[in-house]
Amino acid sequence: MNINMVLYIIGWILEFEAAFMLLPGIVGLIYGEPAAALSYFGTAVFTFLAGLLFKIKKPRTMDLYMREGFATVALGWMSMGLFGAIPFVLCGDIPNYVNAVFEAISGFTTTGASILSDVEALTHAGLFWRSFTHWIGGMGVFVFIMAILPLMGGSTMNLMKAESTGPSVSKLVPRVRDSAKILYQIYFYLTIVSIIVYLFCGLNLFEALCISFGTLGTGGFGVLNTSIASYSAAAQWAIGIFMVLAGINYTAYFYLMQKEWKNAFSIEEVRWYLLLVVVATFAITLNIRPLHAGFEESLRAAFFQVASIVTTTGFSTKDFDLWPSFSKMILLLLMFIGACSGSTAGGMKISRVVIYIKSLRKELSTMVHPRLVRKLRMDGHVVAEDTVRSTGVYLMAYVLILAVSVLLISPDGFDFTTNFTAVAATFNNIGPGLAGVGPTRNYFDYSVFSKIVLIFDMLAGRLELFPLLILFKAGCWKKY
Amino acid sequence: MNINMVLYIIGWILEFEAAFMLLPGIVGLIYGEPAAALSYFGTAVFTFLAGLLFKIKKPRTMDLYMREGFATVALGWMSMGLFGAIPFVLCGDIPNYVNAVFEAISGFTTTGASILSDVEALTHAGLFWRSFTHWIGGMGVFVFIMAILPLMGGSTMNLMKAESTGPSVSKLVPRVRDSAKILYQIYFYLTIVSIIVYLFCGLNLFEALCISFGTLGTGGFGVLNTSIASYSAAAQWAIGIFMVLAGINYTAYFYLMQKEWKNAFSIEEVRWYLLLVVVATFAITLNIRPLHAGFEESLRAAFFQVASIVTTTGFSTKDFDLWPSFSKMILLLLMFIGACSGSTAGGMKISRVVIYIKSLRKELSTMVHPRLVRKLRMDGHVVAEDTVRSTGVYLMAYVLILAVSVLLISPDGFDFTTNFTAVAATFNNIGPGLAGVGPTRNYFDYSVFSKIVLIFDMLAGRLELFPLLILFKAGCWKKY
Repeated sequence: MNINMVLYIIGWILEFEAAFMLLPGIVGLIYGEPAAALSYFGTAVFTFLAGLLFKIKKPRTMDLYMREGFATVALGWMSMGLFGAIPFVLCGDIPNYVNAVFEAISGFTTTGASILSDVEALTHAGLFWRSFTHWIGGMGVFVFIMAILPLMGGSTMNLMKAESTGPSVSKLVPRVRDSAKILYQIYFYLTIVSIIVYLFCGLNLFEALCISFGTLGTGGFGVLNTSIASYSAAAQWAIGIFMVLAGINYTAYFYLMQKEWKNAFSIEEVRWYLLLVVVATFAITLNIRPLHAGFEESLRAAFFQVASIVTTTGFSTKDFDLWPSFSKMILLLLMFIGACSGSTAGGMKISRVVIYIKSLRKELSTMVHPRLVRKLRMDGHVVAEDTVRSTGVYLMAYVLILAVSVLLISPDGFDFTTNFTAVAATFNNIGPGLAGVGPTRNYFDYSVFSKIVLIFDMLAGRLELFPLLILFKAGCWKKY
Repeated sequence: MNINMVLYIIGWILEFEAAFMLLPGIVGLIYGEPAAALSYFGTAVFTFLAGLLFKIKKPRTMDLYMREGFATVALGWMSMGLFGAIPFVLCGDIPNYVNAVFEAISGFTTTGASILSDVEALTHAGLFWRSFTHWIGGMGVFVFIMAILPLMGGSTMNLMKAESTGPSVSKLVPRVRDSAKILYQIYFYLTIVSIIVYLFCGLNLFEALCISFGTLGTGGFGVLNTSIASYSAAAQWAIGIFMVLAGINYTAYFYLMQKEWKNAFSIEEVRWYLLLVVVATFAITLNIRPLHAGFEESLRAAFFQVASIVTTTGFSTKDFDLWPSFSKMILLLLMFIGACSGSTAGGMKISRVVIYIKSLRKELSTMVHPRLVRKLRMDGHVVAEDTVRSTGVYLMAYVLILAVSVLLISPDGFDFTTNFTAVAATFNNIGPGLAGVGPTRNYFDYSVFSKIVLIFDMLAGRLELFPLLILFKAGCWKKY
């Protein structure tokens, strides 16, 4: 392990984070919250200095092998959480540091799981920072840095691999840096458009900004205790639609930018994704119809919640914990499936699920016709054997982390539904689960140890397991 | 698909089942239950005639390809359940046919999930048949037929593959038929020994027989409403130990028979299995210590329940649904892991879990040292690529069936813990789950549709997914 280089890159990450912290500081000034503003500006300075310290020893070589790439991203994200939590404590929004780290990591990983029962008591600076961490984490801070800095020759692919979502990274253009630029360009445009639309739907500018960050980053922190329930029906429809858009594979938008209409609309994963949204919305609408006043209300509630859960955002307009078992079970399944790879969403991703189903069909085919050799295809292209294998191993690691996490938090004594959905909702970066961690509840009551387990799950979910797991592999830390 | 041959072999299965039904008939005569005796004798005749009808068209060829082997076993097991349920209805023990099929399939698949709240109200013939189905299903009826009949030249390996447990079939000796004979020999000896031990521990002959069948088949149907709780402490220890023995890979016993002591004690899977039992027992003992009068009682309760759950038997001495969350979560994990392959237990099997963990370690190794090529080994031997791949696909199918099953039974409106553990307990062939299907409850309240889903899960679990899934593959039914 080239420790110097890992530290050097994390130094860069911290300097960028310091810059990001100036924004909530300014929000604090605007809203007349001098203590909060000072907390953010102060932490920004401190984080910047820490970044300088990390960068003090310039590494001799900048070659990034897979293990350095993965370890750097994992440790970089942890550092962001540890520093990003400080202002919450300083300005008094979240006095306990572990809780503040939980909230910050929940923000960066776009989980949206909170330990707060009353978000309206927070400062505006704090609310803005919570939501803005979603936006930073959504597309990824390493991707951001790559887009801006000519940091490290050509070996940045392993950083991109660790931070972007899905079983394989599809570079939009040959150069990693250009791909990163295009991704952030799309992300930025979508954010701007959603802010404008939200303003038209009656949100004020502060709300529109925060909710946009939460929507496009698929995060889920809101600014009101009622999440999205208090906004107009139009706003709920709009936010629902932008959530669905945020869950689409960004390759589709890239094709649209290139005016390759046919390619844009023929991506297999996106088609399955949209079909899933329609079918789940339809099923839940029928199931919850007796609970609501009219058909539009049922449809809106169902669509909003399906969009929110499948994209792993976690906003809510209704307390879906009170819905019938069938609807809750659909939502729980959507939590695990997640949206498209190459989007900002969490969960397993549609493309992995499609690969699983195709692998199964292929195996059954081989049993029926032993001499038939068939390749696994997506979008007409053969999926590389390596991708299929590592997607299989991903499932093993996924099930293992899920099971061990639920076991580790069970000594706190909560019921199985609470524990299982707490892990499901953090590991898949959703936010609210069911029962004790349902949409009207929060994660405050878990022990410090359980919170650390759930923090690990959020990071593992966002970075898709391997970057986190590799830290536990002894050989990872050896010098060359 | 060579339909004639499939029917022909199912015909044989039914004739054997008819012969097995004579035993509960005799039990009915002994206990002065003429109606029950008549039900079993009558059904035996009917089943025998049905068997003859199935065998009427002798197939021209007896070649058994994989798909025929799998389809035959899946359909054969379904037929056994459909016919085996008839006497329950006729003698009035279980008036409803769907419930009777649920109970019969639960018996054959060694699940032990019941729709009965008062088993003591059953006839002795009925109780005997319930337990005896465990014994038949435990080692497998096709294995039994292969041991006895020189049915079909050499192509019976595909029947064995479908019915025996674990990721790969280890033939003890070169000829399939001899392997089948040895397996049943070991099974028979263990059963006899356990009956004798149980008699010494104070069970009467009827109880000793029934509980032995349930232990060695890892089934779990008892003859008292309190399951095993009313028996002496000595009996509970004995039953616990025999359950653990029933979960050991039979290859170990074969080595013992051959006096190859070193081989017998060095099987990796068996070592992990025993370690798991010890660690889980220890953890639960400490966790439930405050609930029980003394250390011995806590240890006995913990050991018994761990043995019962990890071997997927499902007997109980305590209502573990009342235990702390941590203990319940350990038991729930054990439900999924299961015991050794090549035993009569259900669940994923230790060897699969070991393969998953080794695959994950190998993947992480490859990330750290990209040029390192390592093979996956078990007991020092390289595991075939095909086995690793199909073990991976098994997990995909497993998760898929689990998720879809919970979704399908959720419209009945039970809570998530009940639904999830109902599927876990049937799919892994355990019997009792938690909450609404806990050890003091039963499956009666589920709808007919949900019961059919759970019946499918029991069969899929016992036959390890693929034989059931292949029936849904369109190509499977095509003629050559």
